[in-house]
Amino acid sequence: MRTPSGRSVTSKVLALLDAFTPTEPTLTLTELARRAGLSLPTAYRRAAELVAWGALERGADGRYRVGLRLWEVGSLAPRGLGLRELALPIMEDLYEVTHENVQLAVRENLELVFIERIAGRHAVPVLTRVGGRFALHATGVGLVLLAFAPAEVQEQVLAAPLERYTERTVVDPRRLRRILADVRRVGYATSDRQVTMDALSVAAPIRGPSDTVLAAISLVVAHDRADPVALAPLVQAAGRAISRALGPSFGPAG
Amino acid sequence: MRTPSGRSVTSKVLALLDAFTPTEPTLTLTELARRAGLSLPTAYRRAAELVAWGALERGADGRYRVGLRLWEVGSLAPRGLGLRELALPIMEDLYEVTHENVQLAVRENLELVFIERIAGRHAVPVLTRVGGRFALHATGVGLVLLAFAPAEVQEQVLAAPLERYTERTVVDPRRLRRILADVRRVGYATSDRQVTMDALSVAAPIRGPSDTVLAAISLVVAHDRADPVALAPLVQAAGRAISRALGPSFGPAG
Repeated sequence: MRTPSGRSVTSKVLALLDAFTPTEPTLTLTELARRAGLSLPTAYRRAAELVAWGALERGADGRYRVGLRLWEVGSLAPRGLGLRELALPIMEDLYEVTHENVQLAVRENLELVFIERIAGRHAVPVLTRVGGRFALHATGVGLVLLAFAPAEVQEQVLAAPLERYTERTVVDPRRLRRILADVRRVGYATSDRQVTMDALSVAAPIRGPSDTVLAAISLVVAHDRADPVALAPLVQAAGRAISRALGPSFGPAG
Repeated sequence: MRTPSGRSVTSKVLALLDAFTPTEPTLTLTELARRAGLSLPTAYRRAAELVAWGALERGADGRYRVGLRLWEVGSLAPRGLGLRELALPIMEDLYEVTHENVQLAVRENLELVFIERIAGRHAVPVLTRVGGRFALHATGVGLVLLAFAPAEVQEQVLAAPLERYTERTVVDPRRLRRILADVRRVGYATSDRQVTMDALSVAAPIRGPSDTVLAAISLVVAHDRADPVALAPLVQAAGRAISRALGPSFGPAG
């Protein structure tokens, strides 16, 4: 069903949800309408339907924010909270024996999304946010997810300009291609000061029932006390333990 | 915009999201259509739009499930992941000093939703699921959320039949009303074997910037080694620490 503007109602509803970002989690009606590309009356009418269902909430200050009901439905995503619930005990074990940062991520198109992190209190600071996105070519988890992604995903990432986060970030597609081949061969990835100059991460794949790589787990440690070769078996064992815990709802996307 | 069936397109889209439950996180098209009350062609068309955006994903087996993009947007709900991120360090402290189960919940209409839990490995087993719902009248967190809810919410809960989980669950509205008055007076709630016969929980409120109770935190311990009076200050202090951490996006709903 198309509206006079030519956009489907579904797309307008989804545009309202798309308007919220981690840095601006609450919006006025005017901001909401502008970001969704809707007129004020249309935005108001659709937002009212979303508030009635609980997908949005409206504060006493009149500002809109994402509602708890949407968080509840989102919590049913197998690749989100489902994965996190199965992975958390194993992540906690990894944290207990290392007291370093432990991260869990999945690939969403050409980026990664952090599903969970345990931040060591005395470990090297990391800026990841659960639900936050990051490029695939620099972090340990990103390199694992990219190394095991379909060829067309790799080609798209390698064809686009690669952002340089530090002087050690690999931005040369040919060198990155060799690194990805190494990751597939050894079964883990190392990112040494490629995101920040104080951190090193070691990441390993998490595989679903059909052996597809569905997620990646990593330890992020201060680079000057890190021994990637010693950390790798620990991270790989955790990755395998989580893989074993995954049920059939984690089958590959079609 | 109404469709020939008289239901708005928005309501049909939301009905598709409503179809998924914790016990059935993946659905065939036929199941999806039936649960959403839509014809197969309509369900297929709307679901395709949701898959394109990422709100749903379709597995290699053809089954639909909630998509990672919806989890990402849901993670922006201040009362969901936002609250959890601020509360987690304090919940971890409470866990470190007790090694008991720690739970965090908010009220959604006439029920509570668990936002986070840390499960003690050797603590009494609890069956709560992050994102899961429960009645307000039996658990510690529920009694806190009910005690500080608006009067009309209390009246609705007290007027409906109250489910009895154990022989100790309070299902008499008059007695429950007195318990709620006590919770408000002492500033914490105790649920002693009112949910399962082996567990006792002690819960305290978490208040937003305007002093409204926005959430509740609890310790759940084996009832035979519990001293509620000793646990209460610990839980209350944690509730106050989280209250202090909450920013303006946690203002009360309008």
